Amino acid sequence: MKDTEKFPQYKKDDDYSYSQGAFPTFELLINAPDLVTEIIVSDTFTDMEKLYKLCSERNVEVIVNNKLCNKLSDKENCFVIGRFKKRYRKLRRDRKHIVLVNPGNMGNLGTILRTALAFHYEDIAVIAPNADVFNPKTVRASMGAVFSENITIFKSFEEYMSEYPEHELYCFMLQSSKILGKDVINYPSCHSLVFGNESSGLPDSFMNYGTNVIIEQSDKVDSLNITIAVGIACYEFSKGDC
Amino acid sequence: MKDTEKFPQYKKDDDYSYSQGAFPTFELLINAPDLVTEIIVSDTFTDMEKLYKLCSERNVEVIVNNKLCNKLSDKENCFVIGRFKKRYRKLRRDRKHIVLVNPGNMGNLGTILRTALAFHYEDIAVIAPNADVFNPKTVRASMGAVFSENITIFKSFEEYMSEYPEHELYCFMLQSSKILGKDVINYPSCHSLVFGNESSGLPDSFMNYGTNVIIEQSDKVDSLNITIAVGIACYEFSKGDC
Repeated sequence: MKDTEKFPQYKKDDDYSYSQGAFPTFELLINAPDLVTEIIVSDTFTDMEKLYKLCSERNVEVIVNNKLCNKLSDKENCFVIGRFKKRYRKLRRDRKHIVLVNPGNMGNLGTILRTALAFHYEDIAVIAPNADVFNPKTVRASMGAVFSENITIFKSFEEYMSEYPEHELYCFMLQSSKILGKDVINYPSCHSLVFGNESSGLPDSFMNYGTNVIIEQSDKVDSLNITIAVGIACYEFSKGDC
Repeated sequence: MKDTEKFPQYKKDDDYSYSQGAFPTFELLINAPDLVTEIIVSDTFTDMEKLYKLCSERNVEVIVNNKLCNKLSDKENCFVIGRFKKRYRKLRRDRKHIVLVNPGNMGNLGTILRTALAFHYEDIAVIAPNADVFNPKTVRASMGAVFSENITIFKSFEEYMSEYPEHELYCFMLQSSKILGKDVINYPSCHSLVFGNESSGLPDSFMNYGTNVIIEQSDKVDSLNITIAVGIACYEFSKGDC
């Protein structure tokens, strides 16, 4: 079988996906070496020495094939690709969580995963229906952060709550009148930051769960971008840490 | 002259640019009516009544032309476009500023403009070379926030500083060891938040200007996305406001 047939383009229900580009692929090799099956590289890749070192230490096969590399990449200028087995992992009970209710955009989802990791949120609940966590677009937007996190998909928010009843919920919604950092301060370490879909936000029913909270903002803007809202919330809630 | 000839596709040095889509175009009509020259709309646009009302109140011509609308749009599903005269405006001396040193990506630049406005930063200095502030891509990413802001391009950071010597500078850089919200607190109202290019950040030389500051983050991530960093900085510095 030819290499180009052995490696089909990614589809949502596949068990395997791809990291595209040097940065996410190095993150994959370093943080989730047990998931990597092969590395596909173009002979024009400039950091071949580091790549071969990492792969030989981890016993990962390297395939040099410019055509295949090009085929598997959404963008130009992608010279290295990692194939990996998709894996979801249970969230830890004693860690802070982020809960994403119906995230719809893979770029945003990836950026959120990267931002969460920056603030030590390493346990992420995703409520279906949702943008694909392991699509190469999400992986690239996450800059490989997805390989350092425990991610679980839940069928519903109720399923998440019943699985983690000890977590104090903070639901970010424009309907709230409690201002982050002013009305809502002093956060327990075992908490969940809950965010809605980028277009529609959280439904009104979330006003009944835990504490609702808003990030104060000018009425000249309809709302903050979801990735910025997550960043600000993570920043504020992380202040007590370390 | 045909409409399609009268309205060329946007180029960087043009005096006029376009807002694409309903949201930014309504922002244009509401917040910068003196800049609008024409509105171009497809006959499939669903909010025609609101559009005609806004345009007639402002004496703005509406051109119904599906083909032209399609030609002037980068994306599908864009049914209304505004043509506007580009305008830069002097930053106010008594307001807080954001200074963007060599922003390189129009999507990021637009998102930053939108985020700035959400936190009442309405005076934005951009240091050249820079991504085009009025490119339709930037305008769309800003969700029309660009029409509510005073933006000036400066040839150099030195030029900005000599024009606004009273502003207290806060330079966000990974080289800093002063942590936002911990080591750097109590902000004067007349301040400037200074950010570098999304790939390279601020050069070391900025350690000599005002106060340098870092957003504390996990070493599992190389850096925060620039738009997130700006969001967090705006949030933290706005705490004393209102």
